[in-house]
Formats: sequence, structure tokens, C-alpha cells
Amino acid sequence: MSSIELVVAAAERLRGHVRETPVLTSPFLDEIAGRRLFVKAECLQHTGSFKARGGWSAVSALPPATRARGVIAFSSGNHAQGVAWAASHLGAPAVIVMPQDAPALKIANTRALGAEVVLYDRAGGEDREAIGAALAEDRGLTLIKPYDEPQVIAGQGTVGLELIRQLGAEGLSRADILVPCGGGGLTAGIALALGQGAPGLRPRPCEPEGFDDVARSLVSGKRETVARPTGTICDAIMTPSPGAMTFPILKARCGPGLVVSDEECLRAMALAFLRLKIVVEPGGAAALAAALFHGPQIAGDSVVVVASGGNVDPAVFDAALATLD
Amino acid sequence: MSSIELVVAAAERLRGHVRETPVLTSPFLDEIAGRRLFVKAECLQHTGSFKARGGWSAVSALPPATRARGVIAFSSGNHAQGVAWAASHLGAPAVIVMPQDAPALKIANTRALGAEVVLYDRAGGEDREAIGAALAEDRGLTLIKPYDEPQVIAGQGTVGLELIRQLGAEGLSRADILVPCGGGGLTAGIALALGQGAPGLRPRPCEPEGFDDVARSLVSGKRETVARPTGTICDAIMTPSPGAMTFPILKARCGPGLVVSDEECLRAMALAFLRLKIVVEPGGAAALAAALFHGPQIAGDSVVVVASGGNVDPAVFDAALATLD
Repeated sequence: MSSIELVVAAAERLRGHVRETPVLTSPFLDEIAGRRLFVKAECLQHTGSFKARGGWSAVSALPPATRARGVIAFSSGNHAQGVAWAASHLGAPAVIVMPQDAPALKIANTRALGAEVVLYDRAGGEDREAIGAALAEDRGLTLIKPYDEPQVIAGQGTVGLELIRQLGAEGLSRADILVPCGGGGLTAGIALALGQGAPGLRPRPCEPEGFDDVARSLVSGKRETVARPTGTICDAIMTPSPGAMTFPILKARCGPGLVVSDEECLRAMALAFLRLKIVVEPGGAAALAAALFHGPQIAGDSVVVVASGGNVDPAVFDAALATLD
Repeated sequence: MSSIELVVAAAERLRGHVRETPVLTSPFLDEIAGRRLFVKAECLQHTGSFKARGGWSAVSALPPATRARGVIAFSSGNHAQGVAWAASHLGAPAVIVMPQDAPALKIANTRALGAEVVLYDRAGGEDREAIGAALAEDRGLTLIKPYDEPQVIAGQGTVGLELIRQLGAEGLSRADILVPCGGGGLTAGIALALGQGAPGLRPRPCEPEGFDDVARSLVSGKRETVARPTGTICDAIMTPSPGAMTFPILKARCGPGLVVSDEECLRAMALAFLRLKIVVEPGGAAALAAALFHGPQIAGDSVVVVASGGNVDPAVFDAALATLD
């Protein structure tokens, strides 16, 4: 079961391996947001996203013999890199199952981080679950799920522990904490951390238009699904429903969800470039976009956002910069 | 006189006001550099460059009555923003003298940071020194020079104090410390800080081709001047000769200078985007470029670079990203 105790234990295992990322500010962004704005720059984390935390937490929690057999993950994105990075540093073989039409750069990066990449033919109808299950069975690999896994949630929750300390140093104990949200691992982890040590800090999930399943689930009280997924540039948080394990935590501890447009994410990326000098990917900018452009839905004279990742292609970044013209 | 004591005293005044910027790493950059590479991300400093340190140090060192009359600086760039930011937080009026053809965004930023901007007609032959002197005389303003000023050098030197602590935590006590160098304030300050506490860390100035006055001065032993300045995109470090006050410090404590091309700076910016998720301006990337592309001139199995600033126009950043194609 997920709990604050698991988050605290994960923080111990992560110490010295994962970066304590800085909290950045800019008077120019305060002006746009209409309140003080604090940005937790998790894009500066190893592998360029918070997923390094969950990867490290999950792999380091395995018993030595299990770890030595190795781990497996399905992902073409940040979770793959987080697991690959953690496994290679912890001496565990890692297999990452990716569609063969995944971007070449992502495949190369994951391999360079030390993982074995197994490609499957998505278009040709190959079933990644079957491929993964066979590999796991043959080689005794442990599956690391991207969010519905207590140790992954606990690892992401270390962002919340850092925030309590960092915001405390700023004298801030009451604010909305806006978090980009896909399956809900990061938001749930932060919610666990804050629920214990900082009840005045209220986590709120942020999602792209068309993928507002978590916001709607928080309203209805049960797990809603995106019926007809449209596109979004926020690939990192393009998840059709909250996790079975994350949703009860979100429901118990989060404020209402916020929904942002792709255009708002691009503008938030451009402002992060201009005013904070950090590189944020579209999904990673969803919370910043909410703080900058949805002020009336936010309470208080301060707001905190997590900039959760920075793995963005140059062409998409160019499109973001073009919004400054 | 500049000294380690002034640096330590500046660090006391800066505490809680200036950010301790993180030291970032990437296995991908280690691979290119051929050794472990540590990047001090000073682009994440307030105002987007290390100049906030020197500005704060200089303004905070003024006696209260002098400070209350105000300060003046000549700059269209990072020094202007550093002084404007520090002055406004320290309750000092600030006048920044800029050419009227300076980019509108820089003028607007400096004003937004709380300074009064006085424009002069560079093309029409107006003399900024005369304008500044008259203003200073009339209003009792204190001139804050960009590098030949002991308290400015001391403020920049706090980067070195942080590096000693941060690299010590990595177990690193012997390495070249590559620093983007214009007039030499940052390099001299770091040299003072390291000379005392970390003799195994050797500062080395990095300059763009065509502005290698410091490198040549270190060879000849006297202050050389760029005879026929060509262009460079490294506007932040486009200085024709080392400072009268900085050069003796550089001469006493620095290793040989390194010289990089504009193209190498653009490629370094792109790799910082891709692998570190930080925004670095061309001049701020000079040291990173040296570490990545001039490995044979560097000693040891580790190297440290300062990414000194991130104030870059989107069009120039686009040009950097284009080098990834």
C-alpha cells in the first residue's frame, strides 16, 4: 500500500543519487500569474524528468536476487529513461519494450543509458503485453509499471518532501501545488508527502484539454475515462484514465483539477525559456500554464508549480518560442 | 584591493538573496568531453546571469547614505539587469545608461526591474561617459563598473566558494575550471575564491575567436588589446582587453586561456538544451564549448565549466537548435 512511510523510505534510498532540484522564481512571471509563483524545476532531474525518482525507488526496493535478474518496462518516454538510468546505476539489467516507430532519438537515448531495447510492431498488431510477459517469464524480470506501483509513487513523492523544506524556507505554508498529471503517480506521491507534513499545501492535478479524465474523475468521484482521445502535444501526460492505485489517493487529498490548452502549454514553455532559463516539455509545462493563464481558478497569494520534465524535440521547442513573437 | 576576504564578506551579504545554482551533469556530455563534466548552471541565477551577484555585492557594500542617493551603470546587457535588480531590492535608485538602439526587450526588462533607463544616441555621437558623469554629479550617484571594481569581483567570486563546496561533495579537488571571460570579473573572482580554499582547482578563461585578448595577455604577461574587433555572437563577453584590476589576478592564478568559435558555442547551447535542460546564451556557453570541443587542451579526468548566463534571443536560440539537425 502507498503511504507516507514509503515516501520517506524512498527518500532515504534516493539520497545522493537523485538531484534536489531548485525552486525558481521570476518577478515577470509573478506579474503574469497575479501572485507569487514558485517553479520546482524537475526538468533538471537526471534523465530530464521526475521519472528518475520513481525508477530509482522501484529498482532499489527490489530484493538483491530479484534485482540481479533484472527489470522490464513498457514505455517510449520518460519512464523508460528513468528505469534504464536507475537500473544501470543499481547494477540491474533493464529491458525496455518500445514500439518500433518510436523516435530514433528516444530509442538511442534509452540504449545509451544502458538498457536493452526490444521493439515491437505496433502497426502490425503485435501485442506488447504478450511480448513483455514472455520476456519476463523467460528471464525472471520484474515489471516496473509507470504509476500504479507503490514504490514508483513513493519515489515521485520525494518531490513533495523537498517542496515542504524548500517552501518552508520561503515562509510558505499555504498554497495550491499544481502538478502535471497523466496516470497520477507524481500527483499522488506529492499528495502523500504533503498530506502528512504540510496540510496547507494542496495538490491539484493539471491536464491537457481532451485528456481531462482526472479532473472529471475528481468531480464524479469515480475513475472516468477519456472516451474519444484527441491529440495533444502533451505526450508525457496523455493517459486515458487515472490509475487504480493513484486515484484513491488523489480523491482523498487533491483539490479540483485544472485543464489547459496545447497553446497555453507552448506559451508557458516560452516564458520558462525567457524568464527562468529552463527547458520544459509540453506536458511538463501544464502546471505552469495553469498558474499563468488560469489564475481565477487558483486560491491564495502564492502558487507553486512542478515543471516535471524537459524532454522535448527541437521542432516543438521552436514552435513554443514562436509564441513570443 | 580585491582579496579572498572581500569574497567571503560578499558571500555573507548575498546569503538568502542570491541563488546557490546547481551543478548539473549528463553521461551524454561526459561522453563527448571524454571526461567527467560538471556544469555550474549560473544561467539559473536571478536576472539570468551571474551579474546579479556582482550587482548585489557592490550595492550592498555602499554606506547607507551613499546607497540612498543611488547608483548608475553603463550597460545594455547582463550587468545592467544585475545592478537594476540588486538596487531595487536594496532600496537604492538605479540609473542605467543605454544606447537608444539597444533591443527593446532589454530596455523594457531593465525598467521592469525597477531602474530608470537613460538612452543616448550612439550613432549621433553622444558621449555616454559625459552623460553619465553629469547625472552622477547632479544626483550624487555612485558608478558601478562591470568588472574593474573590487566589490563586483568579490560578488562574482561567490560562484567559486559555492563550487568548492559543491565539487567537494562530489569528491573532486583537482580539475580545470573553465570560465567564460570578457573583462575578467567572474574569472578573477573565482580565481580569488579557489586560490585560497582549493588550490587543485585551476581557473581558465574562455573567450570567443577574435576576442582572445585575455588568452594572449596571459601568454605575453601584459594586457593585450583586440586590435581590430570582428563580430561574435558572444555579446556578453565581447570585451577588447582584460581589466586593469582583474588582469593581475588572472595572471597570478589562471591556467592558459581557451578560445572557441561561434559555431562551437551554438553547438554547446544545443547540447545544454538537449542534455541538461538549461538555456545558455552564446557567451555563457563559451566554457562549455571549450570542454566539449577542445578536450586535448584540458588536463585531468574531470572538468568543470561555468554556464554563466542565459539571456538569449529566441532567434539565436533557434540557430543553436538547428545545429542538432
